[in-house]
Amino acid sequence: METPNQNIKPVTTKINEKGNIEIGGCDLVDVAKKHGTPLYIYCEKTIREMAKAYKDAFSSYKKTHFMFASKAFMTKAIVQILSCEGFGFDTVSGGEMYTVKSVLGDLKTCLLNGNNKSEEELNMAIDNNIRLISVDNFLELAMLNRIAKSKNKTVDILLRITPGIECHTHKYIQTGHLDSKFGFDLTQLDEAIESIVEDYKNLNLKGLHAHIGSQIFETKVYYDEVKIMLGEFKRIYDKFGIKLTEMNLGGGLGINYTINDRAPSVYEIAKQIIDSIDKYTEEYNLEKPTICIEPGRSIVGTAGVTLYKVGTSKTIPISNKKYVAVDGGMADNPRPSLYQAVYEAEVVNKRDKNKKEKITIAGRYCESGDILINDVELPELNSNDLLCIYDTGAYGYSMSSNYNRTLKPAVVLLNNGSAKEIVKRQTYNQLVENDMLL
Amino acid sequence: METPNQNIKPVTTKINEKGNIEIGGCDLVDVAKKHGTPLYIYCEKTIREMAKAYKDAFSSYKKTHFMFASKAFMTKAIVQILSCEGFGFDTVSGGEMYTVKSVLGDLKTCLLNGNNKSEEELNMAIDNNIRLISVDNFLELAMLNRIAKSKNKTVDILLRITPGIECHTHKYIQTGHLDSKFGFDLTQLDEAIESIVEDYKNLNLKGLHAHIGSQIFETKVYYDEVKIMLGEFKRIYDKFGIKLTEMNLGGGLGINYTINDRAPSVYEIAKQIIDSIDKYTEEYNLEKPTICIEPGRSIVGTAGVTLYKVGTSKTIPISNKKYVAVDGGMADNPRPSLYQAVYEAEVVNKRDKNKKEKITIAGRYCESGDILINDVELPELNSNDLLCIYDTGAYGYSMSSNYNRTLKPAVVLLNNGSAKEIVKRQTYNQLVENDMLL
Repeated sequence: METPNQNIKPVTTKINEKGNIEIGGCDLVDVAKKHGTPLYIYCEKTIREMAKAYKDAFSSYKKTHFMFASKAFMTKAIVQILSCEGFGFDTVSGGEMYTVKSVLGDLKTCLLNGNNKSEEELNMAIDNNIRLISVDNFLELAMLNRIAKSKNKTVDILLRITPGIECHTHKYIQTGHLDSKFGFDLTQLDEAIESIVEDYKNLNLKGLHAHIGSQIFETKVYYDEVKIMLGEFKRIYDKFGIKLTEMNLGGGLGINYTINDRAPSVYEIAKQIIDSIDKYTEEYNLEKPTICIEPGRSIVGTAGVTLYKVGTSKTIPISNKKYVAVDGGMADNPRPSLYQAVYEAEVVNKRDKNKKEKITIAGRYCESGDILINDVELPELNSNDLLCIYDTGAYGYSMSSNYNRTLKPAVVLLNNGSAKEIVKRQTYNQLVENDMLL
Repeated sequence: METPNQNIKPVTTKINEKGNIEIGGCDLVDVAKKHGTPLYIYCEKTIREMAKAYKDAFSSYKKTHFMFASKAFMTKAIVQILSCEGFGFDTVSGGEMYTVKSVLGDLKTCLLNGNNKSEEELNMAIDNNIRLISVDNFLELAMLNRIAKSKNKTVDILLRITPGIECHTHKYIQTGHLDSKFGFDLTQLDEAIESIVEDYKNLNLKGLHAHIGSQIFETKVYYDEVKIMLGEFKRIYDKFGIKLTEMNLGGGLGINYTINDRAPSVYEIAKQIIDSIDKYTEEYNLEKPTICIEPGRSIVGTAGVTLYKVGTSKTIPISNKKYVAVDGGMADNPRPSLYQAVYEAEVVNKRDKNKKEKITIAGRYCESGDILINDVELPELNSNDLLCIYDTGAYGYSMSSNYNRTLKPAVVLLNNGSAKEIVKRQTYNQLVENDMLL
């Protein structure tokens, strides 16, 4: 069964009777007119369908928790939508916890993760009754126990491990290989467990946490990940008599950014995970653990589209290469310059396919590297045409900057013909509000 | 004569009697204690010395304007400091113009540049009496003339050209080569001038503008740039009878990020430019034009240092590679992941050089690519030690994001023993203030 992460476009995308692109029942020309450009757009139905697909794919495995990897895209409204779908939140900072707390009142559905959590963040997590803290290293074990003890509390923890799996993704977002800044090496695990057993009485070890990468297209790595983790469950039981009950497998499922991509469906991932659990719990004679899946990109990536207004263009005489500039670029989407990410684009307001030409979509930022898409075939674009770039829902807004002192765009959620602003556009006044005169 | 851009450290850097690093007469341990970490620090003296070096280096050429390339680092206080040094501002957005205007009241010392200026930005520029607009392309010529005409104003303009000079810098920041999104190709220049002469009566062509790149170490390119531009001045005079009076040479002077870098001094650049002007104004029988230099990185790059607190560490058993994590990373300084930029670092609070080890400085962000410096030799670091990374003054704060929903650090200006916060640290409340509930 296909899932929306395998589409290029949000599930509600269509061409309406005016010939314009419509998402969530809203004509994007009208949306741009009302909310301005550049604009981040999200299709609520795509987000919810992806969340439901995860729940459905794992429905045969009752003990599954889903925690949204907040770093992909977090706003208050996203917290509302995904908690309504039964998801918790994988958080990695005080800011992410603060956002969840400001909507839900506490952090009972959250996990705190990260290679260098601050004392302040650990305090915030404990004070707001976080469900789990994934402890990354020895120093954090000591610090967390000290804080928990000072509060006379016991904290449920996982140990973050690097299972030694190499997956074929951009090296910046490989996280489960051995040479990683994250987590305990498997050879260090016993020492960590011994210290918990002997010294850290305010830490309650519930299980293990791994995360093998991001934008993953191979399904077999999940099978292997489960195998390695359950192997550790078995070894730890045999050696320490500790029954681990929670296995957090991280996220990482990829999405199709271009028509050449072949992301697996959620069902394929789920099958690998459940099959591997079935096989190795039996082989190792283990109880089936609670599992936790932490999707980020696959939940919001396909749902998000960035809307730009076309401005100027320039043709290089010697090569005939044509640059068409839009009113956004590397500050609202750093992925092309950071990861050489490739996207698909369409003209929103023009369905005349006859006059196609190959162009390069340049951003508005004062930097030659500010190119959004190289060599894309599109109908001839004119000033004030609207362009949408698909699959910008993950790591677009979340990595956005104010480079060139531009304002962060608004975010609009589209559903059933209504367009709701879920993040207001920044204002010039906000841009300078922290600036102090000498 | 050496200039501060050739140093790794701000000019006031020293080790004080406690063994701590001191900048601007302030002990960085005290500064971190008071203002927190991560923290952007600027040495005011270094900024002013660089500005004075530019003025001194060009003192024999009276008709020189300096405009600070605001995109490198702009806050209200920087506008105050550099306008006090006699600099104007090269701006590329409404936000940069807004910042200048909020300090100086108008844009009379500014130039507006950019490959895709919006109608709103052109309006803002004209309404606030901007000194010059550097027009990038044909569409902008038409749009600007229309806007100026509607206001019954005449606007002084330059034409941005791509002189076809390749300089050896990162391809993202090469801007003067022929295949660039910026400016008019030289073969298009006559058509642009004809349209100004014939159709655009509200535009007053003052000269040409080029920018050949960023982080430039070769001095000869400036000689060549002047030669090409004056060649165009001559050609345009011969063909159109138009005496261009303003030659904007852009910026681009590099700084030393590491001890292996060999950035030229401001004096070397100035000599190339002035020599080339002398030669070619004579050869072409031209009046000496007003020139404009737009330094950015070289003014603020060396002056800026980022201060981090050391957190956790991890040693990879199979390779013995050691990661030491700090409390910032790719959100406050995206240059290592974006341009593979290399920096020098020092421990602030520890001068015991005996126990050195090779480490990799990792950031706190949930991404394997979040590495600040690979394989640097430093005294053994412990949790709560302070680390400073030099030469982060340009394109650090200006490209910073809220990735992982972290807060943008504060910016502190150090001078004569006083530490003045010039940008306040973001707050959690500011982080969510534009978020709307459903």
